[in-house]
Amino acid sequence: MTDTNWSVPETEVLSAVGDALAAGREAVLATVIDVEGSAYRRPGAKMVIEDGESAGSVTAGCLEDEVRSIAAEVRAAGEPRVETFDLTGDDGTWGLGMGCNGIITILLESIDESHRPVVERAADGGDVGVVTVVDGDRPRGERGYYTPEDGFAGDLPEWLRAELSEPTAALLDRGEADTLQIDCDEGSAEVFVDGIEAPPHLVVFGSGPDVGPVVDLAKRAEFRVTVVGFRGAQATADQFPAADAVLASSPASVESVVAFDPDTYTVVMTHNFVDDRIVLEALLDTPVPYIGLMGPEERFEELLDAFAEDGATLPEDAFDRIYTPIGLDLGGDSPYRIAYSIVGELLAVANDRTPQHLSEREGPIHDRITADPETADRTAPE
Amino acid sequence: MTDTNWSVPETEVLSAVGDALAAGREAVLATVIDVEGSAYRRPGAKMVIEDGESAGSVTAGCLEDEVRSIAAEVRAAGEPRVETFDLTGDDGTWGLGMGCNGIITILLESIDESHRPVVERAADGGDVGVVTVVDGDRPRGERGYYTPEDGFAGDLPEWLRAELSEPTAALLDRGEADTLQIDCDEGSAEVFVDGIEAPPHLVVFGSGPDVGPVVDLAKRAEFRVTVVGFRGAQATADQFPAADAVLASSPASVESVVAFDPDTYTVVMTHNFVDDRIVLEALLDTPVPYIGLMGPEERFEELLDAFAEDGATLPEDAFDRIYTPIGLDLGGDSPYRIAYSIVGELLAVANDRTPQHLSEREGPIHDRITADPETADRTAPE
Repeated sequence: MTDTNWSVPETEVLSAVGDALAAGREAVLATVIDVEGSAYRRPGAKMVIEDGESAGSVTAGCLEDEVRSIAAEVRAAGEPRVETFDLTGDDGTWGLGMGCNGIITILLESIDESHRPVVERAADGGDVGVVTVVDGDRPRGERGYYTPEDGFAGDLPEWLRAELSEPTAALLDRGEADTLQIDCDEGSAEVFVDGIEAPPHLVVFGSGPDVGPVVDLAKRAEFRVTVVGFRGAQATADQFPAADAVLASSPASVESVVAFDPDTYTVVMTHNFVDDRIVLEALLDTPVPYIGLMGPEERFEELLDAFAEDGATLPEDAFDRIYTPIGLDLGGDSPYRIAYSIVGELLAVANDRTPQHLSEREGPIHDRITADPETADRTAPE
Repeated sequence: MTDTNWSVPETEVLSAVGDALAAGREAVLATVIDVEGSAYRRPGAKMVIEDGESAGSVTAGCLEDEVRSIAAEVRAAGEPRVETFDLTGDDGTWGLGMGCNGIITILLESIDESHRPVVERAADGGDVGVVTVVDGDRPRGERGYYTPEDGFAGDLPEWLRAELSEPTAALLDRGEADTLQIDCDEGSAEVFVDGIEAPPHLVVFGSGPDVGPVVDLAKRAEFRVTVVGFRGAQATADQFPAADAVLASSPASVESVVAFDPDTYTVVMTHNFVDDRIVLEALLDTPVPYIGLMGPEERFEELLDAFAEDGATLPEDAFDRIYTPIGLDLGGDSPYRIAYSIVGELLAVANDRTPQHLSEREGPIHDRITADPETADRTAPE
């Protein structure tokens, strides 16, 4: 971890937490837990600080130096700390100064075993709602982990779990984070609820020279990436160092090596007509929302003819899920530019957006964080 | 250069030629000079082979091993070679086999001093038409360099220059490559004309943590990237290792440090209201076709108010060139995902495309290479 990688894909920030844990290194995690007014990052934004170096960012560069210096104190003291930075001035909402406005509250804590379940869950591709006490009757830093399947695990008392199940499930469902005040007969506490959604999963079928750029860019766009090669020797982890997994399979049995769910996106680029046909048929049997198929439209028509000859019937929603020709129309025909258009399409579909210039879009650009306009007035990257 | 980076941005393939020259290493350049039927790469696609390792690709992986092995022979023999690979079979146009169809002709040559002018011109951000004799009355490998300003330099005889000025200028203008047969009284020759356009130039104003991802992705999308920081110490080459240049300037004098031309794209992300206003005003005085402005629409309105208060008038085409909120609507609010949407917009504007799903676009997807349908039937990445 060097000072130059402060801006890394979000997925790498949690990896940095895991790396510090695995190596037994002392490090501090800074997390934005509350924002009022205009700010570059939302609650849940994280930064890992180790020996003055860092990965990730909590603002547009206005607070990073200060956060690094407080992190050193937190590491020395061993106690979690909550710091509020008031960056509002009398210079108007959008700032004559650094463009870092609003009031930003940051939780700083030494990375310890209480982070391990989060890192492990993320590595498994699972969602987790992390609840951390920041103030009130309970000790700061007390932590619970919520999953839709199992409810809460961890240290939180029963009354907090009961109060928090519903809001945590809701925040996790939206992949959002918020600070909540809980007051009931048993006690009161301010808690930070961090809905950490697993990154969407991209599965690429193929092992040609056009696969590498797709893997590379999809990792930067914060996908978890699996490459499936149909000629074992050709798809190796060495060949795709950025991939989370490189697997071998036969086209007909891809379901035995990958779990396909509604958050799995697939790109078929085997350059082999028969392989493409078989894997396409297998994917249509799964709930994946996106099947990108490399090749011109005529080739897809030939694939459909081959289906018909086999007597195979396509599911009714096949044409809503198959994207061919693959990608957005951004121009360029080099492997990297084709990959750029593919991953752009993956992002648009995963985030349910209509690809177009934001300057031509009507309506608010970003979904509101909460119903409270005081904490949700960010409408575009500032 | 390792075996795993065979798929690199196109801009890095010419860099690899330059690296081999600078280090005095023996290496071979393979260039696709002709394609008939369906093929993954177009004429002009390049691959550098060094000690069995390579950067770049000439097909979708079907010929790379064979090309590497021929490269070893070319290096030993020291003579340029032209190889034609007939990948058409009786398995239909779109291939039951490897998806590598068509007839592909590749020029292989040892990298030598005749490549230096090309590398230097590219490094300077200039366009160059490279003409190489591949057959006929003139020696194979004889080479000329065409620029719009100075016409031909290099070794070609006058009669070839005269015949080739016009077609070379046309191919260079479109950034395309083709093999031409020239027959006239003075002689005849088959020549490969490679219109090597400089990559588009992106200039990013800013030095915050949101700049790094834009630089990183723009380099992968094959832009030449310059970062201009307004607080000298903050924008350093160390901070943006992927950038081609990192410069310091004051907002009002950006024209003294960067040459802005119609192929220069600009992104303003200083997070400073006054800096943004001054640099925006300066950029509107240049012929740049794209000024992306970070921040919400309200902030742009405040900038316009500030212009009005200054009594400044905007050029008539200002609103056609200013893109704010910046980027395509792909979703996500992390620094890397915001950067992805910005660079996607840069590609669409630079390539004059309307960003949308290719599967929803009507008409041919790729511009035709030539007017000859035999050599131009590729309509989408295969």
